[in-house]
Amino acid sequence: MHISTETGLLDRIQQNLTDYLVFHRAETRSLDPAFATAVEHLVQFVLNGGKRLRPTFAWWGWRAAGGPDNTAQAGAALRAASALELLHAAMLVHDDIIDNTDTRRGHPTIHHTFTTLHHNRTWNGNAVQFGTSAATLLGDLALVWADDMLHSSGLDPHAVARALRPWQAMRTEVLAGQYLDILSPARGDHTSPTAVRIAELKSASYTVQRPLEIGAEIAGADQWTLEILRRFGSRIGIAFQLRDDVLGVFGDPAITGKPAGEDLREGKRTLLIADAFSRTRDQHDHEAIDLLQHLLGNPELDDTHVDQARETLNRLGALDAVERQITELTTTAIATLHESGLPEPANTQLTKLADAATNRDH
Amino acid sequence: MHISTETGLLDRIQQNLTDYLVFHRAETRSLDPAFATAVEHLVQFVLNGGKRLRPTFAWWGWRAAGGPDNTAQAGAALRAASALELLHAAMLVHDDIIDNTDTRRGHPTIHHTFTTLHHNRTWNGNAVQFGTSAATLLGDLALVWADDMLHSSGLDPHAVARALRPWQAMRTEVLAGQYLDILSPARGDHTSPTAVRIAELKSASYTVQRPLEIGAEIAGADQWTLEILRRFGSRIGIAFQLRDDVLGVFGDPAITGKPAGEDLREGKRTLLIADAFSRTRDQHDHEAIDLLQHLLGNPELDDTHVDQARETLNRLGALDAVERQITELTTTAIATLHESGLPEPANTQLTKLADAATNRDH
Repeated sequence: MHISTETGLLDRIQQNLTDYLVFHRAETRSLDPAFATAVEHLVQFVLNGGKRLRPTFAWWGWRAAGGPDNTAQAGAALRAASALELLHAAMLVHDDIIDNTDTRRGHPTIHHTFTTLHHNRTWNGNAVQFGTSAATLLGDLALVWADDMLHSSGLDPHAVARALRPWQAMRTEVLAGQYLDILSPARGDHTSPTAVRIAELKSASYTVQRPLEIGAEIAGADQWTLEILRRFGSRIGIAFQLRDDVLGVFGDPAITGKPAGEDLREGKRTLLIADAFSRTRDQHDHEAIDLLQHLLGNPELDDTHVDQARETLNRLGALDAVERQITELTTTAIATLHESGLPEPANTQLTKLADAATNRDH
Repeated sequence: MHISTETGLLDRIQQNLTDYLVFHRAETRSLDPAFATAVEHLVQFVLNGGKRLRPTFAWWGWRAAGGPDNTAQAGAALRAASALELLHAAMLVHDDIIDNTDTRRGHPTIHHTFTTLHHNRTWNGNAVQFGTSAATLLGDLALVWADDMLHSSGLDPHAVARALRPWQAMRTEVLAGQYLDILSPARGDHTSPTAVRIAELKSASYTVQRPLEIGAEIAGADQWTLEILRRFGSRIGIAFQLRDDVLGVFGDPAITGKPAGEDLREGKRTLLIADAFSRTRDQHDHEAIDLLQHLLGNPELDDTHVDQARETLNRLGALDAVERQITELTTTAIATLHESGLPEPANTQLTKLADAATNRDH
């Protein structure tokens, strides 16, 4: 096993996921063939896409803390890191039910797939209810398999015990973030502090900071290394989310694979939108308030509306402000890293990752 | 710590759950107060009820394999056993969404609680959707906390590693059983083999056999002890489910806390119902087929209907057959146990438990 390039790393993560899922899908066949058929949809969902950002950050956390590149131990560390992708699948499957999303990564979502199956076979009962129920259970399966994959990664028990601290914290944090994400629109709480808190829990912690910590803890990192990675991770995580917010309104559908202005249609209260609302109030711009309130969560949103929203976010200065924040967070994070003198190639790779996560078009 | 009587054991399980949940609820407060308020509903759900059957079986599996009664190690084993109750909470919370059940253990279900909250506060959006989403996330939280509680129980890493085999198998098995439980009515599959498979996965494995194995593995049980417990557990598990099936139709609402004939109203395809359908076909009893098909899943079901169903199940001989099966399974299971000569008081306590689980009125 040789992991040296980014491409090689992604292939190896994919191989780990394939190995784990093929073996366990075969086990489910011995439980019941119909269950195995259902599990196949989850397997395809995990294997067919995603940026593998979380396992990648975990891997470079491991390397940054001095973990070797190509030993048996390194193989176990990467298997443990790959388990993050199963956790992420669980979160996405349940999130798609919550948001009632029909497509994800260019394919039908799991609940939508099972609804269609029920409909096409003219089964008894309500097709939507069946689809939602099946996806709830398959999301649960991905959630428990994530833990199982971590614990069967071949790491020594002490390394697992160290990794469990950030692993456990991260799972609670992302669920807290998901809950606030449904609570804040229900309560009509569109304030910046709430949007920041959601971004911290759902993105900074879950996507970057905790994965880095998990990898580093597996390698037995000292407190200083953990602290550097935490500071780097929290900043890159927020910048990552801000980039997502910008793409959710300004992204090119041909590149993002999502409809234009998808975040507006879904009524997402992102950091970008929270910043815009705060500016409308400061600038007493009632026209902008009315427009944004009219467009947010509007299922009839068309391209003209998206253009209006883009123009308004530009005029208010919200886009500029968010872009400045992204640059500042990324620059500070990379500076922290460079001053730290963490070992190469981790230092260079984390710098590249920071740039890729915050300066992307999809 | 002294665990000698059943009552003492239940108190101790309750204390373990309370300790774990109070500590972790406090942690969620530092993440976000609103999230902590939501988590409080989950905490109350776990602490306010349930027979604690799974931790109890796990404890007597531990004792049957020679685990001591009142050492630090025994305390850790019981904490690990208590984690089964968090897993069970997760399954119930999600199952209540799937079945759209409004009450559980005499209280509103979690999703119903959050729907009511949304409604009472006149929050934005759809109250049912909010309730379902919040309960999906809290079920996920219980699912990951179950793992966290197992891993922070204080067991030595080797004991945890041994327990993980049945723990992991059990989680996949119960989800397979849950999936078949929604699939079989959708496909109109009311055959006995399917009903048996669901009972094996959802009840035998999940409620009795795997918990016993988990406790025994923690104690470092030999293969012979594990085999005895598996044989005992699979039989008592099925008998437990058969008793549930009988109570679901013949139970006294004043004692079960559930409406009369609840299983009929929900259209559950239990082993009892599968047996009845098989008898209607053997006996060419078209009247009974029509009646049962009319009543199963009938939301308008009243007391007269329930009486008709009871009379029919009696006349077909289905009730007698199921009662005979319960007696036979329980007798064989207890005989296996007694021939085994497993250490006391485990032998006596497991005999009592077998009787309590299969010969109960609620």
